Amino acid sequence: MKRAAAVLFAAMAAIGSASAQTAAPVIVEDFKPSSVNQPGQPYPQVNSQGYVRFRVTAPDAQAVKVSLGLGGRGGTVLTRAADGTWTGTTEGPLDEGFHYYHLTVDGGTFNDPGTLNFYGSTRWESGIEVPAHDADFYALKDVPHGRVEQVLFPSASTGTQRRAFVYTPPGYDQAQRARYPVLYLQHGWGEDETAWSNQGHANLIMDNLIAAGKATPFIIVMTYGMTNDVRPGSPGGLASFDIKPFQTVLVNELIPYVDTHFRTKADQGHRAMAGLSMGGFETKLIAPKNLDKFAYIGLLSGGTVSVDDVNGTPGYKEKVKLTFVSFGSRELEGRGMGGPPGAPRADPRATAAALKAAGINSVFYVSPNTGHEFLSWRRSLHEMAPLLFRN
Amino acid sequence: MKRAAAVLFAAMAAIGSASAQTAAPVIVEDFKPSSVNQPGQPYPQVNSQGYVRFRVTAPDAQAVKVSLGLGGRGGTVLTRAADGTWTGTTEGPLDEGFHYYHLTVDGGTFNDPGTLNFYGSTRWESGIEVPAHDADFYALKDVPHGRVEQVLFPSASTGTQRRAFVYTPPGYDQAQRARYPVLYLQHGWGEDETAWSNQGHANLIMDNLIAAGKATPFIIVMTYGMTNDVRPGSPGGLASFDIKPFQTVLVNELIPYVDTHFRTKADQGHRAMAGLSMGGFETKLIAPKNLDKFAYIGLLSGGTVSVDDVNGTPGYKEKVKLTFVSFGSRELEGRGMGGPPGAPRADPRATAAALKAAGINSVFYVSPNTGHEFLSWRRSLHEMAPLLFRN
Repeated sequence: MKRAAAVLFAAMAAIGSASAQTAAPVIVEDFKPSSVNQPGQPYPQVNSQGYVRFRVTAPDAQAVKVSLGLGGRGGTVLTRAADGTWTGTTEGPLDEGFHYYHLTVDGGTFNDPGTLNFYGSTRWESGIEVPAHDADFYALKDVPHGRVEQVLFPSASTGTQRRAFVYTPPGYDQAQRARYPVLYLQHGWGEDETAWSNQGHANLIMDNLIAAGKATPFIIVMTYGMTNDVRPGSPGGLASFDIKPFQTVLVNELIPYVDTHFRTKADQGHRAMAGLSMGGFETKLIAPKNLDKFAYIGLLSGGTVSVDDVNGTPGYKEKVKLTFVSFGSRELEGRGMGGPPGAPRADPRATAAALKAAGINSVFYVSPNTGHEFLSWRRSLHEMAPLLFRN
Repeated sequence: MKRAAAVLFAAMAAIGSASAQTAAPVIVEDFKPSSVNQPGQPYPQVNSQGYVRFRVTAPDAQAVKVSLGLGGRGGTVLTRAADGTWTGTTEGPLDEGFHYYHLTVDGGTFNDPGTLNFYGSTRWESGIEVPAHDADFYALKDVPHGRVEQVLFPSASTGTQRRAFVYTPPGYDQAQRARYPVLYLQHGWGEDETAWSNQGHANLIMDNLIAAGKATPFIIVMTYGMTNDVRPGSPGGLASFDIKPFQTVLVNELIPYVDTHFRTKADQGHRAMAGLSMGGFETKLIAPKNLDKFAYIGLLSGGTVSVDDVNGTPGYKEKVKLTFVSFGSRELEGRGMGGPPGAPRADPRATAAALKAAGINSVFYVSPNTGHEFLSWRRSLHEMAPLLFRN
């Protein structure tokens, strides 16, 4: 009841502020700890409107700032109280979903001690979750759960033992004769092989889809895309990126390892590759050149596939069963397109429409009201997974 | 060559300081980044003597301190340089192995942005690794690797989906008919189910033992011991700790789940329970009361088993195949015994000797030159594992 009243009040307040644009926003005081806080930590908090309130203890600090806030305003400046805590609230509501951030304390970069950390921007960053209205599809529910397995596989080309995480669907171990298709799923620049499980909830998305009978059970393999030595965001940076070392690890080392150590359907028709942002670029660089290996291609905020791309790739029309391309709507609005390599140049909607018109089996998906962030990619996986391995 | 010369110099310096006790220590300038730094981070660094040097950027801070250092001196105070970095070196060498720590920046508690984080003290803490002379036994090598699998299991008693990590040995998946014994292995107070893999390298210890033919391949199950709402260190705190909720999760929910979902040898003779610190106390509270479930018992810096304990427990003599008890040598010296619940009262050496003299199959192990820390527990697992499931 309290919650309903608060939401109604928020709606009225929004109407009020629309009719008098200079009025300060009315912030509803129903803040709750973020779901990705460390155990027992009360801050940061999120309210029903999507405002975030931060609180950090640093009695003798001169200045404490949070990197999250409204675009272009340099984040959220915290204010010191008499008890030595620093508190501040974002100037406006944040988009739904997961956001990376960090603190600046007296000029130094630190994580918020209140939150769990997630690997992004080539470091373990603080994270916050603004509850999404459709969060149910990646919620931890009382359904049969698959596993996320850490495997260490030998890589002769790099002279290392490398790490991958492998999602096996519910029932994998009981069904001792069944074999499964495999999706190779790549993270973005600055992230690593932990991202799709920790930030993406790929395992929970699959558990829920499979429980609802909406997706064919398949294996997901997530490994490090060797992307973090590359400066992102410029054509030069991308142009100088050499895909070959990672292609060798993925195609010549990891795929054979997975096909030996897991009960896979080890043929082209039962193998997919997809990735987010730079992982999408990697997918586009690797999969079309290895069409004896992959039948499904997914680019999530990571570029597009044009008719020219298809025509210029021998075998694409015959061998690729599905081309899936997605973006967050903010990316198409031109927002949040500054840095990430996934920012489109030509309008991807037109490119996708032309591809469909040319008779290529393709799906184009836009995540509503999200940017180059993980809610776009959770939703994209949720849209793409039911389309994989159907025939 | 450089390294050898530096070590020789260090040895000479040590001799020098022994003969002139008031002289300042000579610190060998062969510092290298700690092995658990975040990717690409140069600090913190460790030298060949075990000194640690910290460097943190915080140009406008008033005071930066590190919680690690010599006992009783309140850690290591960093000093500001003109470029806005703060640097400091521990006053003496630290014990070999893994140590938790955090920064205090202008009165606030933060993690060192240079290092990976590890769950301890009920929070994700910074960690540092002082290379151990015997680190080879837990090194990542080119041997067949088992997996660490995240499972989510339903718990009716708590109304939650709970997490466990399960180590399956190399070859588990190829050997599709083989069944394996199981060790249930508990973390300490303030830690969680990630500790034995992240800090403990339990998987690598087992991979190396199995590759060398020194241990029977077995499964290890690690789940959260529900210990973090309890104040440690006082008999009152321990006395008021109620083991029943966790015992229900472990014995009535997790064991049946594991025996259904993994190829286990699902009988008493092929099941062990062990734990470190408070996890050892949990083991002692649960295993002797469930001797229809467990045949092997291990307490790692987590109390002792006395002749009285055995005589007071019906069936102990007949059903327990091995009682393993271990400590770090510093704990027996009375060092590092302030807080942790594992700190012994009666001399555990005498207790262990009496147990052996009474004809109970038991092993007592002391880790040289380590305290209530993870190198003691890595070594203890390395000593205990070869003794499990041998008959």
